[in-house]
Amino acid sequence: MYIKNFLFSGKYCGLKKNRDLDVGLMVSKIPLRVSAVFTKNKIKAAPVIISKSHSKNVIKALIVNSGNANACNGDYGLDDARRVIHGLSKELEVMESNIFVCSTGVIGERLNASLIESGIPELVKSAKEDGLDDFAKSIMTTDTFPKIASKDVSINNSIYKITGVAKGSGMIMPDMATMLAFIFTDIPIKKELADAMFKECVDLSFNSITVDGDTSTNDTAAFFYPDGEQISSKFQIGKTDANYASAKKVLLEICFELAKMIVKDGEGASKLITITALNARTETEAKRVAFTVANSPLFKTMITGEDLNWGRIMAAIGRSFARIKPNDIDIYINDKIIVENSAASEELNKNIERTILSPKEINLKIDLKCGKASRTVLTCNLTKEYIDINASYRS
Amino acid sequence: MYIKNFLFSGKYCGLKKNRDLDVGLMVSKIPLRVSAVFTKNKIKAAPVIISKSHSKNVIKALIVNSGNANACNGDYGLDDARRVIHGLSKELEVMESNIFVCSTGVIGERLNASLIESGIPELVKSAKEDGLDDFAKSIMTTDTFPKIASKDVSINNSIYKITGVAKGSGMIMPDMATMLAFIFTDIPIKKELADAMFKECVDLSFNSITVDGDTSTNDTAAFFYPDGEQISSKFQIGKTDANYASAKKVLLEICFELAKMIVKDGEGASKLITITALNARTETEAKRVAFTVANSPLFKTMITGEDLNWGRIMAAIGRSFARIKPNDIDIYINDKIIVENSAASEELNKNIERTILSPKEINLKIDLKCGKASRTVLTCNLTKEYIDINASYRS
Repeated sequence: MYIKNFLFSGKYCGLKKNRDLDVGLMVSKIPLRVSAVFTKNKIKAAPVIISKSHSKNVIKALIVNSGNANACNGDYGLDDARRVIHGLSKELEVMESNIFVCSTGVIGERLNASLIESGIPELVKSAKEDGLDDFAKSIMTTDTFPKIASKDVSINNSIYKITGVAKGSGMIMPDMATMLAFIFTDIPIKKELADAMFKECVDLSFNSITVDGDTSTNDTAAFFYPDGEQISSKFQIGKTDANYASAKKVLLEICFELAKMIVKDGEGASKLITITALNARTETEAKRVAFTVANSPLFKTMITGEDLNWGRIMAAIGRSFARIKPNDIDIYINDKIIVENSAASEELNKNIERTILSPKEINLKIDLKCGKASRTVLTCNLTKEYIDINASYRS
Repeated sequence: MYIKNFLFSGKYCGLKKNRDLDVGLMVSKIPLRVSAVFTKNKIKAAPVIISKSHSKNVIKALIVNSGNANACNGDYGLDDARRVIHGLSKELEVMESNIFVCSTGVIGERLNASLIESGIPELVKSAKEDGLDDFAKSIMTTDTFPKIASKDVSINNSIYKITGVAKGSGMIMPDMATMLAFIFTDIPIKKELADAMFKECVDLSFNSITVDGDTSTNDTAAFFYPDGEQISSKFQIGKTDANYASAKKVLLEICFELAKMIVKDGEGASKLITITALNARTETEAKRVAFTVANSPLFKTMITGEDLNWGRIMAAIGRSFARIKPNDIDIYINDKIIVENSAASEELNKNIERTILSPKEINLKIDLKCGKASRTVLTCNLTKEYIDINASYRS
């Protein structure tokens, strides 16, 4: 039922005003390796800087706090993150360099490291195999539900597990937004192989979602696994064998499921929107078209209003700067053609216009008819609740 | 009081549901030249395509309709725009190629050219020197007020006039959003000179504003003036004389005033925000930093909430991909320092945090301390009213 050798806990340490769980811990009984993808934001939070340097090491524990991003605090930020790591390393009797640390929350306020230090003994003591729910809750900020996904995968006739936890609902954009995602598995993998596998999965999942186009200083997606180098080749997976493909397929499913949960939980969102740009010249251009539409406030509010004003989709496509044929674009919504050769489809009528955006899930397909590359991104609609949440985030 | 030789009118022709004025006309008693800047959107409305080709000709009239963008209508769109031009050319007895045409409104619905054709005789008959108010009203869509600015300029001891009219309040972004701006003057200028002068002014005004990051298929800014080539050199302005500088200064003032009105009238906006990025490595990078902050929904909602969460400004700067020194950024709001060397300023306290965003006009300065280039952009806040307006634009 649980992932072998991984123990989890979560605790309220006093960082959040509402007394929700705010520090999560993962401790591994065996040495792990990690493959991690960090924010591309040039302003990086202190824990991002530290974990990035630790990610080449063996990892034995992961500690995450919510309620404070520990970003933009100058040298104090690094000091505070190191105090947390130091406290945990003493309690666990592991080296500081074997600890991975993350923070999420408000930027620019000092992290009260003492509060976390005081909570560490209890966090360590309570860590257990079935503690993942508490861990998932303790990393939430504006999330309305904890995000966990888990699947089994069969490798050489043994059943292994890939389990992921994520948080994030605002400031979500590719290249890691205010998003933390942690994936754990008991499959032993060589780091080099896992790095490549994870990067590919992140690109097609967490890097293919957007809520508001904002990206943060703290985003981290990390994949933890037993070190394949240390384990007899019999139990390993290799790049060319079927086991690699099975593991990668399940890893992508977990990442995608978590990414979808983040978008569904988009701040104030009431609709899940899947946008696919088809037949672009290059994958980059397909991605650019899909993301330009996905981030258009006019498109997102139109979905909220459920009134098909498809010209806004065309305008977004046209300003994406992908190479397109301006008079040759088809658009489908939930498999009904609404735009044909860049003009209103003959099948379109007032009735369709007023009902086609009613479903909770909107599937938009943009056929650019000028190449063979495609790309899918996920987003949500823009509502008044987004304004409410973000006009008063800290209050 | 009025600009010599320019006549204006505006009329309700049946395009708008609410019976507001929806077609505007400008007729000139003398041949004009035009310098125009059009949308960079690859999906261009029919009138943009036609006016772009006419803009090298002598211009004798300008006709503009609101209520319908005449974009994404395939060949029908070009036909309909040409019918409008044809009707006006017959009535005025000028060549079709001497007419400049613009449309603004909903994309993807056929323009009812007959309604405009029927209105043309009355539009022509009622055109008069003091008709600019009606013209300004007839080009409005979601605008809440007509936008007119006018100034005198002294050239060779004669008083000339530069007068501008604009519309636009949503889908506003650089490279011309759902924005139309028309500037008229009685100063004779050579086209080559006016083209350069106008391009520079547009870049520092209409191309330095953003409401929601969306750009449209119809945007046009056009500057109409008597042809300098046809007029004795005594009354002309030359690139190197003081008259050129005076005329350009006033032209920029008019453009900037209109641009500011557009942002002030931003859909649902309640605050005018001026963002200056200082001491960037290049002007492009300064512009990029200022626009990334200006388009961040998290920044815009923070201004609405009046609760200083300055980390959102830092996060936006960091993802702008301008070359910055991550630990060396200062931020000022209304001349008070709030961030010093990328961390909270010592002068910051709870009281300042809660009051500094109260004013109606917010002046944000970002000192990047890594170069000498600066750039200012204007934007507005994001409110629930924006969602209301855009979730039901067509209803």
